[in-house]
Amino acid sequence: MTTSLDSQFAALADPTRRAILARLALGETTVLELAKPFAMTQPAISRHIKVLETAGLITRRIDGTKRPCRLAKPGIDAIDQWLDMLRQALDRNYDRLDKILIELQTPKGEPTP
Amino acid sequence: MTTSLDSQFAALADPTRRAILARLALGETTVLELAKPFAMTQPAISRHIKVLETAGLITRRIDGTKRPCRLAKPGIDAIDQWLDMLRQALDRNYDRLDKILIELQTPKGEPTP
Repeated sequence: MTTSLDSQFAALADPTRRAILARLALGETTVLELAKPFAMTQPAISRHIKVLETAGLITRRIDGTKRPCRLAKPGIDAIDQWLDMLRQALDRNYDRLDKILIELQTPKGEPTP
Repeated sequence: MTTSLDSQFAALADPTRRAILARLALGETTVLELAKPFAMTQPAISRHIKVLETAGLITRRIDGTKRPCRLAKPGIDAIDQWLDMLRQALDRNYDRLDKILIELQTPKGEPTP
């Protein structure tokens, strides 16, 4: 079963798709504008955009004949919440290490500060 | 060219590997212990662990005949820093939206609060 986190992380595992997201971090833009800095055909860029859209990382709206893209908050939040579990675990490890260092630095018999 | 972000995000795009990281968030453990809850052979789990290790998301140390695994802070920090760029962009968008809402709610001619 492919979960949305599977497709979200898979979508991020490509430098062109990360560059597209970095561009969209500056604001909403069209596929034509997005394609400009890349040495890639517009259909190739469109395929990358489709992957990002399917993964829920970007969203597109209809504006006349244009379909501008922007970052999709819910998809990015989902990734962020999952990573938060790892961040918190690393912070706890560092807290434990701090405690051990304080204990090592305190001469025996003296109360810890 | 495969960058480390490519391999890190690709490593996260698998539910078994995310489950291994979630288990390691509780603390360092051996491959044998890691393999227990999964309906998978130990070699299959070892292959997933190898992917996580190559991506720099976990690290292993030698403890006699054991090689316990734990989360690798530098790899997880690298992902986190990249995502921070998207988070900040989304926050800026929300700030802009707040400003627009305040302007819409303020009758014309009155000073904004």
